[in-house]
Amino acid sequence: MTLAPDADTVRLSLDEARSLARRVLSAAGLSPAHVEAVAETMVAGERDGCASHGLYRLLVATDSIAKGVVSVDAVPALDEPAPALVRVDGGGGFAQLAFERGRPLLVEKARRFGIAALALNNVVHFAALWPEVEALAGEGLVALAFTPSHAWVAPEGGTRPVFGTNPVAFGWPRPGRHPFVFDFATSATARGEIELRRRAGQPVPADWGYDADGASTTVAKEVLAGAMRTFGGHKGSALAAMVELLAGPLIGDLTSQESLDADAGRKGSPLGGELILALDPAGFLGAAAGQHLQRAEALFEAIQAQGARLPSERRYAARAVSAHEGVTIPAALHRDILKLLERKD
Amino acid sequence: MTLAPDADTVRLSLDEARSLARRVLSAAGLSPAHVEAVAETMVAGERDGCASHGLYRLLVATDSIAKGVVSVDAVPALDEPAPALVRVDGGGGFAQLAFERGRPLLVEKARRFGIAALALNNVVHFAALWPEVEALAGEGLVALAFTPSHAWVAPEGGTRPVFGTNPVAFGWPRPGRHPFVFDFATSATARGEIELRRRAGQPVPADWGYDADGASTTVAKEVLAGAMRTFGGHKGSALAAMVELLAGPLIGDLTSQESLDADAGRKGSPLGGELILALDPAGFLGAAAGQHLQRAEALFEAIQAQGARLPSERRYAARAVSAHEGVTIPAALHRDILKLLERKD
Repeated sequence: MTLAPDADTVRLSLDEARSLARRVLSAAGLSPAHVEAVAETMVAGERDGCASHGLYRLLVATDSIAKGVVSVDAVPALDEPAPALVRVDGGGGFAQLAFERGRPLLVEKARRFGIAALALNNVVHFAALWPEVEALAGEGLVALAFTPSHAWVAPEGGTRPVFGTNPVAFGWPRPGRHPFVFDFATSATARGEIELRRRAGQPVPADWGYDADGASTTVAKEVLAGAMRTFGGHKGSALAAMVELLAGPLIGDLTSQESLDADAGRKGSPLGGELILALDPAGFLGAAAGQHLQRAEALFEAIQAQGARLPSERRYAARAVSAHEGVTIPAALHRDILKLLERKD
Repeated sequence: MTLAPDADTVRLSLDEARSLARRVLSAAGLSPAHVEAVAETMVAGERDGCASHGLYRLLVATDSIAKGVVSVDAVPALDEPAPALVRVDGGGGFAQLAFERGRPLLVEKARRFGIAALALNNVVHFAALWPEVEALAGEGLVALAFTPSHAWVAPEGGTRPVFGTNPVAFGWPRPGRHPFVFDFATSATARGEIELRRRAGQPVPADWGYDADGASTTVAKEVLAGAMRTFGGHKGSALAAMVELLAGPLIGDLTSQESLDADAGRKGSPLGGELILALDPAGFLGAAAGQHLQRAEALFEAIQAQGARLPSERRYAARAVSAHEGVTIPAALHRDILKLLERKD
């Protein structure tokens, strides 16, 4: 660990970041298997320049633990409800370990049947979905992932919360390269972005949300107490509904409204399910899969040749830098994280 | 058939509309099995108030036939490349018959494995995707469908066409009700909408597209010669890329650019593939499926209770009216359709 010259930031190697995350999560009472899986996700976020899903999430995760929202020693239980389906009951623990538990069988089934699905049930979500789809694309599969959250977002045409921020993630394997990966909320913006504006006393754009009476507002606090909007009008709203259905009732798990009700005002991380689909390119294509994946590269080239970015370019660029230089976090955040250790050590 | 009092419109019963569509398609040289499947889709569009996907498409389909873009007597060939995958090679014919050929096996596999996928290869597309997902939802399955089109749409951050209008459709079964169905283009608007503005000499909004030099323009003709934009900024653009990949290289079929190249300036309907995913709620849920589908109804109620519409409400309302009153089309369109018969009879 090194203090930057201005001492406003702290630089950590990836090993130091991992070690710090593990110590904090252990001190919070999380069982070793969960510590390992959760720390890895946070370090990956920080490494990829996603500060809001990086070490900052130590504050979020330990808060959910302290509030009793998370089962700290849940042992994920795997079963196979149908030949091409895998289900992991996370037992109220964080989602990461449940995914790790289900992933090998999902991969095996996708390769065997051509397509397969994994449902994570009864898990707590604080992270992005790209780690899941990137991991599967890294094994040569095409992957989709969906999860509801808490009911914060109004359907298009309405003004009262029904949906969560309901992300959709997609991963596509690229031979010899990082996978093509996207992961976006179906809300107009991240809830954290509105929270940042509130803290800074700044207004939000008028199309981000409504106040509790259903009126348009540019006051961040009023949107947080009212309803966020979906991205892309009725199309984004339709996708948000799809995420609720796929990763809620279809897998026997909570909708965003039910998750918020289960939270009972504790302001913990969302509780519920996640649905992950995996397709094997060799399923439809057999030995020709490589040749068709190569045709996909022409699509990516046509996008990049005109100066447009692929969705994960910035993340991968940050990753390359972090591998050599480690990660840099605000000194204030570093102090806040260390305080979590003081309380417990 | 009745002329409305003002004689600007013609009213047809659904049977009359079906009979007219069949006669026109037969006269165009389409084989009987294709006539049946294609006519049914057009009547469904007209019946549901989707005029642009209704009997108007008789002009589009017969134009593609006249240009030699479509194989009029293609016999779809079905195979099973993997246990949970179905593939239908449409042989260059319209997509409708290929879907009908693959549908029973897709349904059977979804019920047997929990999830299954159907690829339609080498088919010509002129229609919406909702008929496919609605049919599957009508059999109690959850369905997703994707198809590329012609390269008309620029990626976010670029100004040159790469993507098609690339629709995404979703269907969800509702016990005792019409399924929850959406079907939207990932382009900012339908290409036909820009075409209408061009004919009417009207400008288009500045965020619909670019001219051939990559500059923003409000001139419809310039957007048609340049590039359309995706909906929802980088999120819509990411979805458009996903559709290209899923219903292109993943199933060994054309991207939108390759479809446009294959068209070779004939301005025919897009040629290529379509991917349809189907999940059986009983796969994850067994006997509890009904109870969880009922929870989904609470989501729909929360949307509708605040005055927001479900995606297909207008279509279903139009359908209810059409069942009693038939459909009403412009007299000019009716004359244009009858001309197609005069040429051939």
